[in-house]
Amino acid sequence: MNAEQNNNQPGDSRFFDKSGPYSLEKLVKETGAQLIPAQSGKNIISELTAIAPLQIANSSEVSFLDNKRYLPLLAETKAGVVIVSPAFADKVPSDTVALVTTNPYLAWAKVANLFYPRTQAKAGIHPTAYIHPNVKLDPSIEVQPFAVIMDNVEIGKNCIIGAHSIIEQGVVIGNNCRIGSHVSLSHAVLGDRVTIYPGARIGQDGFGFAVGDEGFVSVPQIGKVILNHDVEVGANSTIDRGSVKDTIIGAGSRLDNLVQIGHNVQMGKCCIVVSQAGISGSTQLGDFVTVAAQAGLIGHIRIGDRARIGAQCGVMSDVEPKSDVIGSPAMPFREFFKNVAFLRRLVKTSGTKEKK
Amino acid sequence: MNAEQNNNQPGDSRFFDKSGPYSLEKLVKETGAQLIPAQSGKNIISELTAIAPLQIANSSEVSFLDNKRYLPLLAETKAGVVIVSPAFADKVPSDTVALVTTNPYLAWAKVANLFYPRTQAKAGIHPTAYIHPNVKLDPSIEVQPFAVIMDNVEIGKNCIIGAHSIIEQGVVIGNNCRIGSHVSLSHAVLGDRVTIYPGARIGQDGFGFAVGDEGFVSVPQIGKVILNHDVEVGANSTIDRGSVKDTIIGAGSRLDNLVQIGHNVQMGKCCIVVSQAGISGSTQLGDFVTVAAQAGLIGHIRIGDRARIGAQCGVMSDVEPKSDVIGSPAMPFREFFKNVAFLRRLVKTSGTKEKK
Amino acid sequence: MNAEQNNNQPGDSRFFDKSGPYSLEKLVKETGAQLIPAQSGKNIISELTAIAPLQIANSSEVSFLDNKRYLPLLAETKAGVVIVSPAFADKVPSDTVALVTTNPYLAWAKVANLFYPRTQAKAGIHPTAYIHPNVKLDPSIEVQPFAVIMDNVEIGKNCIIGAHSIIEQGVVIGNNCRIGSHVSLSHAVLGDRVTIYPGARIGQDGFGFAVGDEGFVSVPQIGKVILNHDVEVGANSTIDRGSVKDTIIGAGSRLDNLVQIGHNVQMGKCCIVVSQAGISGSTQLGDFVTVAAQAGLIGHIRIGDRARIGAQCGVMSDVEPKSDVIGSPAMPFREFFKNVAFLRRLVKTSGTKEKK
Repeated sequence: MNAEQNNNQPGDSRFFDKSGPYSLEKLVKETGAQLIPAQSGKNIISELTAIAPLQIANSSEVSFLDNKRYLPLLAETKAGVVIVSPAFADKVPSDTVALVTTNPYLAWAKVANLFYPRTQAKAGIHPTAYIHPNVKLDPSIEVQPFAVIMDNVEIGKNCIIGAHSIIEQGVVIGNNCRIGSHVSLSHAVLGDRVTIYPGARIGQDGFGFAVGDEGFVSVPQIGKVILNHDVEVGANSTIDRGSVKDTIIGAGSRLDNLVQIGHNVQMGKCCIVVSQAGISGSTQLGDFVTVAAQAGLIGHIRIGDRARIGAQCGVMSDVEPKSDVIGSPAMPFREFFKNVAFLRRLVKTSGTKEKK
Repeated sequence: MNAEQNNNQPGDSRFFDKSGPYSLEKLVKETGAQLIPAQSGKNIISELTAIAPLQIANSSEVSFLDNKRYLPLLAETKAGVVIVSPAFADKVPSDTVALVTTNPYLAWAKVANLFYPRTQAKAGIHPTAYIHPNVKLDPSIEVQPFAVIMDNVEIGKNCIIGAHSIIEQGVVIGNNCRIGSHVSLSHAVLGDRVTIYPGARIGQDGFGFAVGDEGFVSVPQIGKVILNHDVEVGANSTIDRGSVKDTIIGAGSRLDNLVQIGHNVQMGKCCIVVSQAGISGSTQLGDFVTVAAQAGLIGHIRIGDRARIGAQCGVMSDVEPKSDVIGSPAMPFREFFKNVAFLRRLVKTSGTKEKK
Repeated sequence: MNAEQNNNQPGDSRFFDKSGPYSLEKLVKETGAQLIPAQSGKNIISELTAIAPLQIANSSEVSFLDNKRYLPLLAETKAGVVIVSPAFADKVPSDTVALVTTNPYLAWAKVANLFYPRTQAKAGIHPTAYIHPNVKLDPSIEVQPFAVIMDNVEIGKNCIIGAHSIIEQGVVIGNNCRIGSHVSLSHAVLGDRVTIYPGARIGQDGFGFAVGDEGFVSVPQIGKVILNHDVEVGANSTIDRGSVKDTIIGAGSRLDNLVQIGHNVQMGKCCIVVSQAGISGSTQLGDFVTVAAQAGLIGHIRIGDRARIGAQCGVMSDVEPKSDVIGSPAMPFREFFKNVAFLRRLVKTSGTKEKK
């Protein structure tokens, strides 16, 4: 195998263990979708063997359509089964079974998890790992090569501690957590089912210093980081611990790669922070807030529940619940795009005039 | 303890060793602040046991107010002592002692450092560390698990070399430096009291290549990285070594997390570079320059002393000393916000007209 | 040696092994440049001993001029030989030999590679490394301290696997690759001569989840990462593996530090992605595309061959081949700067009027 031979076939057995096959009934049950048999009547599917994208799926495989950009691929698919929304049910080719649901991506997630169930912890501590004698580790956990677990750490059931990770003194980790490779984790308390991707830095002291006569004086940062249940933190992201309060990431929130979270940030439930976004110190986010890629929030502001911050947005003041903002400085979506369009038109018109 | 039980009490003993108690006199001496006894006369404090934020401090604890946003918290605080600026001295509750100073955050830094003094190196090399036989290490240094120290490295007194860090061949580290976990340090010379946070990458070759007929040709990068005294480099930040000159970070400068410094950048004393900002190759910063979060500077420009570059600013040309710029492309603060306001007003007015 | 003694002399022997000396003829042959002898006739150079920047090069050293900003340094250089473009050939001092070529930076790259040839792998596996018994490693490879190579990995000739790196199960690496320290590499297939800088995270599952009734549901990510021949990935950059397709970086493409590449991104040949830029999932780049620093591309769009995306640009829709765009939202370079200038002028004029 070499890099030039890219077959684009998903689920390469070098990397993935596939489960299945599964019956069509099982898929219907799992997704709650409505089954519409193939119009042609030809295709009597008993078992589905795999999942695949529309353009390469075959008659024993399941695919899905979530984004209308890819409608042309649906028309030509050879997939045995396709998960679609009601709006596109009539676009499914005649040899293909449709599984129709109002949330096709969620149904896809459920089907994909059937075929590729989450890897489970293989109980055991790799002989190269370093474990401090004074720790409280559930015997079910998997500790990978060269991981380091320091004094007074507590780790719950079925956790995986990745290669080269360090769990510093006193850290508490709940059940079913996955700590990727090369993670630094200190001054932190984690709930259950927390996932941390490789290279994330969690719990270091934040950017806190006073300006003295002879340079900067560091302020001791004596808060923690709290990652509640089901939080995910992306690769190479950084979360500073609190200064005198804690930095808190609410249950179910997901941070993408290369995200920065300053000290004392408090984030509600099920927030989404996309890659390379940054949230400055002491800013508070409500529940279900979305912060798109490369957006930046200054410190000490409040973002209301279900607010959406657009990509590259620069937020300098509080944002109301449910509002959509974009631009730097942030303004309502509609206003931002109106301003952009207005200026472009104005400049063009003016240019025309000048030429005359 | 679990993630849901978040009491927000700072200085959790799982993670922090507290010093003290300290007398009120000691705090006055340390900070140089003016003592104003509690108006009620009730509260005769002999000893302060801890520091805490306004909303949870009790009568034997010290707190502070630095940001007027939090004035409502001052009114309700039960803290025994509060550090405040003269402007807010009369807002301190009647049972609370005021320590009044023109730089309350600096006073707070000093008090916090009393209660939570900096961790000291515990002399010794962890048995799992790999040390090349040809090195010059002061016996006072602490080397943590799985650290790697290569050929011809020199390390001064009282340094801490974090777990899984690698100090590559020839690197020179001064006294009292702290290298966090998972740091890569190569082609570098460090002064004293330099602090590097986890996952920083320092000294790799920069993005230097020529465009040839058959693709890109790398240009050997034969400079170093110089980190002068008291420099701090944040978590997962990257500093490329010089191409033919050196990349230099001036004494006392502080870089936050996820900052990028290109090859040959020269930065003066006590600069501040906030998280996710990037400085392109060969750009020069004077002393006391501030680069706010997510700002970007192109290469080969000069930023004058005490200039301030706003968040998300895109700097494409030289910046005068002491000037404040923001926007992309960068312009003076005043002008930027005037332009934004003007356009918003213009569009609104125009909209009104169109409707009429 | 300490950090304060910065002599700015390149090629410090603590860090670099120099080759040479080389004759002038050798340089001419290597670069294909036209030799113009020193006008003064004084300087008969037989051998060149080193390379150096204009301001410190001496009469036995080679330097170059690539950026006209540095013309004043050319006038005063003491370099024995300077590589210049035809436009500046007559600016070379009278004691200095000129090597004239239309691509001086490429010539410089070739000369610098003569004096500082690429480090070669020193065959051998460090005794502290952990190697799974079931692997296929060419005996010529160098494996540094604490590296981890897991089950079923294949590595070709003359590769270097850096300290603390982890090569996860099934990964395939071609010949002459360099994996820096602290790299996480999983679910990936690499061509030949691929270089990965310290701390890069390659192959983790991307930001893929569906919104369910009780929070987010992760979608298994079952694609790979393909890094074709001669790809370079900068320090602390992150490349997520594909969801159902693969994430593909085309031959010769170079990614700088702290770059984010989302799942399913497909990038053509010889693209350049400068530091802190981010490309969202499923976006496709043609060949020779340049994405400047801190630019962001949304998902599911197409960027044509040889397009150039400016720094901090926010790209929300397809970009035509060979076009230059900048701004957020992206627009043609000319239009962007025209709009900026127009608004600034308009506000100034308006201000004048108001005062009157």
